[in-house]
Amino acid sequence: MLVTLKQIAEELGISITTVSKALKEYPDVSKKTRKLVRETASLLNYKPNAFAVNLRTKESKTIGLIIPEIVHHFFSSVIKGIISQAEKKGYLVITLQSNESYELEKKQLNLLLSKRVDGILISLANETADFKHLTEITEQETPLVMFDKIAKVVKCSKVIIDDRKAAYKATAHLISIGCTRIAHFRGPLLPQNSIDRFLGYKQALTDHNITYDASLVYLLKDMSFEEGAFYAKQLLKDHNDVDGIFINTDLVAIGAISALTQMGIKIPDQINVVGFSNWFMSSVISPSLTTINQPGFQMGKKAFKILYKQIKDKKKNKGITYKEHILETDLIIRDSTKQ
Amino acid sequence: MLVTLKQIAEELGISITTVSKALKEYPDVSKKTRKLVRETASLLNYKPNAFAVNLRTKESKTIGLIIPEIVHHFFSSVIKGIISQAEKKGYLVITLQSNESYELEKKQLNLLLSKRVDGILISLANETADFKHLTEITEQETPLVMFDKIAKVVKCSKVIIDDRKAAYKATAHLISIGCTRIAHFRGPLLPQNSIDRFLGYKQALTDHNITYDASLVYLLKDMSFEEGAFYAKQLLKDHNDVDGIFINTDLVAIGAISALTQMGIKIPDQINVVGFSNWFMSSVISPSLTTINQPGFQMGKKAFKILYKQIKDKKKNKGITYKEHILETDLIIRDSTKQ
Repeated sequence: MLVTLKQIAEELGISITTVSKALKEYPDVSKKTRKLVRETASLLNYKPNAFAVNLRTKESKTIGLIIPEIVHHFFSSVIKGIISQAEKKGYLVITLQSNESYELEKKQLNLLLSKRVDGILISLANETADFKHLTEITEQETPLVMFDKIAKVVKCSKVIIDDRKAAYKATAHLISIGCTRIAHFRGPLLPQNSIDRFLGYKQALTDHNITYDASLVYLLKDMSFEEGAFYAKQLLKDHNDVDGIFINTDLVAIGAISALTQMGIKIPDQINVVGFSNWFMSSVISPSLTTINQPGFQMGKKAFKILYKQIKDKKKNKGITYKEHILETDLIIRDSTKQ
Repeated sequence: MLVTLKQIAEELGISITTVSKALKEYPDVSKKTRKLVRETASLLNYKPNAFAVNLRTKESKTIGLIIPEIVHHFFSSVIKGIISQAEKKGYLVITLQSNESYELEKKQLNLLLSKRVDGILISLANETADFKHLTEITEQETPLVMFDKIAKVVKCSKVIIDDRKAAYKATAHLISIGCTRIAHFRGPLLPQNSIDRFLGYKQALTDHNITYDASLVYLLKDMSFEEGAFYAKQLLKDHNDVDGIFINTDLVAIGAISALTQMGIKIPDQINVVGFSNWFMSSVISPSLTTINQPGFQMGKKAFKILYKQIKDKKKNKGITYKEHILETDLIIRDSTKQ
């Protein structure tokens, strides 16, 4: 059984208050008694009773994290970044998975609030189109930081990449190597990042005097390898003149490359492919995939750092200032596009 | 700011005790008052104050999870299984990553204990060779369940697969299709599962009258794609008569297949390859990989279920009975081995 302060007090024949003070190194307890208490506590294997919510400081030293999907290389990298940074600052992280469901996300936010977490980190579900559950949190002054999949209208700190700029860079690269019929496999309609990637693609075409053709844009649902293979085949049926594809995420791009290769299409000679995320498999497949590097681990670290500052500011009754932090992304040129 | 019981009481001009009782639907508060309190609470957006450790029941309704590495398909599947099951039972999960470090694992266990979690789930770090920190927990009667990477000597519940049997099956499959010079890329020396996979490999050879040759066994360190490619090349230099390889994990096997293919080796005609884990990429690469299916999601669910039962039994002062649950594994035959 866990040893209590009372047991230490009984063991030594002193009061519980003295034991408690001694363990906190209060100077009104003699050095000798403090040493004795420390030694007895260690001997009995006493663990300080840190109730998750400290009744005095009202801090739980835990934060909540809601993520759409854990089994996903980008998101598990973000989780790792958050957890590693939180641990350095003495915070624990409660992780929940929304499964891209709006209802679950709402329920989980309330659950975390009821557990009195000191702050919340969230990446939104694809389904989420109403943001009342989020504005409620900021109105209650619970520190909240959104990352990756955010809602622009909610006033809170955000850690993102510039998806539009990155997508522009990816598309402009295809244009610079001579592509003129460029398809785009876009993400679902709702999340801001798939909208922004689509807009970046479109803008790059316009800026380079290439007419935007809506029939070259394919809407992904589950963003799987299989979907990449499926739409690659569909694309070839629909447009035999396509010379480049910009794809919302690497896993789908790898599916597309696999299907194109099986159909005897030469990559990059006939079709150039650019992905997005820089999944670790992208550098090792053949041909290796040109892609945008999306820094998951750094995003997690940064999101925690901003949340931590907000928690500290709140404690000092400082007003919260919202920050939008944009992480840099690079285009990594590999063998799936012409040199 | 968060609304307190006091504010509701002031709003209605009644006592805090009455508000508290009304919210808990105590019959000694009139129906009318209960309704009024409920409505006011809802109007003020009151959230019940669930301190993470309930002072009455001494339950925190949180459990701790220590995992060696989050960014890993198998482990993130386990986490998902644990979290999904925990949520169903109203438990939250605090996740920590040991980074395969013994020191960190020890520190994290103490941290979780000091946070008064109701139970702990752990998969051991590769470095962990001393188990005192774990026996201490079971001696204190904190429910503990180990999964995947376990310590046989620690008395607690465990959820594992039969690694030896699975490895035996994988190796016997290679023998059944005619292989006689079978290499093994084994995992690091310490974790029980890599020892067991090696022993299963060795046993299958012996049982089929194939002499065990230690020079055909290669020791992996970081179990990466690159390491798979590296040792595949090394193996061909060392043994030009090799006709089969059983590899500790799929990612390494995919690295090996990639290197062998680049060297012009025909798989499975010249060399047959069997992996372990059934990573989702294994079915989509070319040639697709014959492998052992390691059920991560189910393992996570089962581990939580056993922990949950122990937490409940402890509450009822029932003695804890330790269970060792072995999940079934299948050999999935694909194109990297001859039909």
